[in-house]
Parts: sequence; C-alpha cells; structure tokens
Amino acid sequence: MTPQERVEPLPARDSTAPLRRGRRGGSTASREHILKTARRMFADHGFEGTSLRQVARAAGVDPAMVHHFFSGKDELFALCVELPADPGQVLAGVADTDPGLRGELLVRAVLRLWEGPAQPGLLAFLRGTLGSKAKTAMLRDVVARTIISRAMAGIPGTADEVALRGSLVATQMVGLMMVRYVVRLEPLASAASEDVVRSVAPNVQRYLTGTLS
Amino acid sequence: MTPQERVEPLPARDSTAPLRRGRRGGSTASREHILKTARRMFADHGFEGTSLRQVARAAGVDPAMVHHFFSGKDELFALCVELPADPGQVLAGVADTDPGLRGELLVRAVLRLWEGPAQPGLLAFLRGTLGSKAKTAMLRDVVARTIISRAMAGIPGTADEVALRGSLVATQMVGLMMVRYVVRLEPLASAASEDVVRSVAPNVQRYLTGTLS
Repeated sequence: MTPQERVEPLPARDSTAPLRRGRRGGSTASREHILKTARRMFADHGFEGTSLRQVARAAGVDPAMVHHFFSGKDELFALCVELPADPGQVLAGVADTDPGLRGELLVRAVLRLWEGPAQPGLLAFLRGTLGSKAKTAMLRDVVARTIISRAMAGIPGTADEVALRGSLVATQMVGLMMVRYVVRLEPLASAASEDVVRSVAPNVQRYLTGTLS
Repeated sequence: MTPQERVEPLPARDSTAPLRRGRRGGSTASREHILKTARRMFADHGFEGTSLRQVARAAGVDPAMVHHFFSGKDELFALCVELPADPGQVLAGVADTDPGLRGELLVRAVLRLWEGPAQPGLLAFLRGTLGSKAKTAMLRDVVARTIISRAMAGIPGTADEVALRGSLVATQMVGLMMVRYVVRLEPLASAASEDVVRSVAPNVQRYLTGTLS
C-alpha cells in the first residue's frame, strides 16, 4: 500500500468542516494544527522545499508527532492539497493495463470520476486551486507525483520521453475536464460518454505510445 | 470588419484602470456606466438572455446611447468579458487555410499568443474567470461565438458534426494552455515551441478533419 492509497476525500474549501482523525488516533487539535502549518509551508515553498522536520519545527511539535499522524511527506502533502478524490482508486488497475489499451482506460476513468458523486467537490477544488498561484503550484506537484506517475507506469521509452508523453496526456485530460465539466461547452458537455471515449481515446493513445514527431 | 475585430485588449481585474474611450467619442462616464450595467446583466442572464434594449433600460439611458458607444451586442459582450486578446487578430487567416493544414496553424496561434506580451493578461483573465461560475458561463459564450466559430470556418461536415469537432478542438487547446502556461507542468512547460507543435498538431488535426469513431 503506497501512502497515496490511504488518502481519502476531504471537503474542499470548507474550513469549518471537521478534519478526519489520524488513522492511528491521537489529538484532533494537534493533527489539525500540523496540517494547517504544512499547508502554509507547502504553499510558500513547494513540495521539494518543505521537509517534515521543518513542518514540525514551524508547528512547535516534535517530529515524532508528525510521524505519528502522517505516514510521510506524500500523505501530508496530499491531505494539504485536499484532493477531492483518491488517485489510487480512480486509476486502480491502470498500471497493469497493456500500454496499447491505456488511452481508452484513462478517458473512462476521468469520465467515471466526473460523472459520479465527486463532481461538486472536483469543481470546487479546481475553481479554488486555479484561482491562486500558490495553490496552482501545489496542484502541479500533486498531479506529477500521484496522478501522472500512475498513468504512465510501464509506458515504454526513456524517462525523458515518458515524462513528455505524460504531460501531453495531461493536456488532453485537463482540457476534457475543463471543457466538458467546468466550462460546459456544447455539444461536448451533453455528449454520451461512449461518444466521448471514441472521440478522445485515440488522441490520448497517440500521446501514450504513438509517434510524436 | 466584424464587431470582434474592433475589440482591443483591456486590463483584466483592475477596476481602477481607465476604460478606453468609445470609438465615436462621447462621455467616458456614460460609456463606463453602460459597460458596468451590461457586465452585471450578462453575468446574471447570459448572452442570449440579455438585449441591448434591456441594458439601456437598466442603465437608465436611451438605447441610442448604447448604439452610440458600441457597434452591437457582440462588441459590448466582448468588452464586458474583457478578453485580453482579440480573437480576430489571433486567428487571422485561419478561415482561409486548407482544413487539412489547420491543426498546425491553430497550435502555432495559441503558442504565439501565450508566448507574447499578452501572457500576464491571459493568466489574470483565466484565473479570474475560472474562479467564478457566472464568469465561466460568459467565457463559454465568448469562446463559442468568437473563437470556435473562426477556428472551424469551412471545416466540412454537418453543423452538428462541426460543432462537436469544435468542442473537441477546444479540449486540446484549453488543456495545452492550462498545462503549459497556467499549471506549468514539466517537461511540457519548458519544451521548445516546435516540439510542442509537432506533438500536438496531429491530435488537433484529427479533431478537425479525422475519423472520430
């Protein structure tokens, strides 16, 4: 089980909602205080520029307490970003799929996610995140670390090639979400899911395994 | 000359900046007052649900005064949305290009736009627009009316087919802008323009003229 697989949806943009308890129990107040401190530090310094030790120091707690509440920096970061869905669940099974069939699988995963109960949370998350430069930088880190890495697992090519392919896949997926669900441009907003899959999957597949130039 | 071709960039999100004068002269104060009224009405009722006559009534001016300052509803709407670039200029020549070559032309137009002096205005515009549901609806109208209509002019197919192709093109273009310039995901954010064109243009071309299912 990787750290991300333990991430659960948290309500986006509702600072009054109670945070869920640490999985190993303990004081909710301390956990909340560490989360709040970490959120500020990740926003200011990014994922790479923030260590668990620094978060502990800034929160005035012992590093052991941070480790008591969170399995590691990945989990803490994912909770800070308040992703409204768990990438491990959304992309379950993707890494085991033949790279040649993965375009369709990824498009189906995006449609299933957005056409399910997570939609309002996703919309609030995107609106809140894209409106702020610091939050957008956090989104970039979490997309690269927890979403693209899963989507691209096992895709053939050098690390550089696969990274470029991954960001090209992201352009199509982000654009599909923005146009169909956020901007709601017709006729795509009302198109049947199967038509969307047939139209978009071959383009995603080209980015995954096709000739790029 | 269509109404949109007269639209000039306006500073986004800076309500203290002076609005440019009506092209036929006249009181800046009245023009600003009409614009402000129209912005509220378009946000509340959308493009179709707002008439120039209603704007005049709500602003407490004679309809002739609205026509004195603005060539029509298209121009008034475009000014209200405060598009940071003129679609007529960005997409100049697109309608005259062979549909089979248009994918590359559209990608080049997007890159040229975002890699020029308009970038800060575009970023502010997107952040401000996507953060608000009413503004997102206005963006949808302006994208459909002034951007997609130009990009798709002369593309073969029934009106329904061309409309679907247009919204699919929008997914790729919006996604490219979001990932390369807003989220700045690497390695795409730093990739050479020519590499981006080679990677993305064939996918846009498939949406424009290829087999979709």
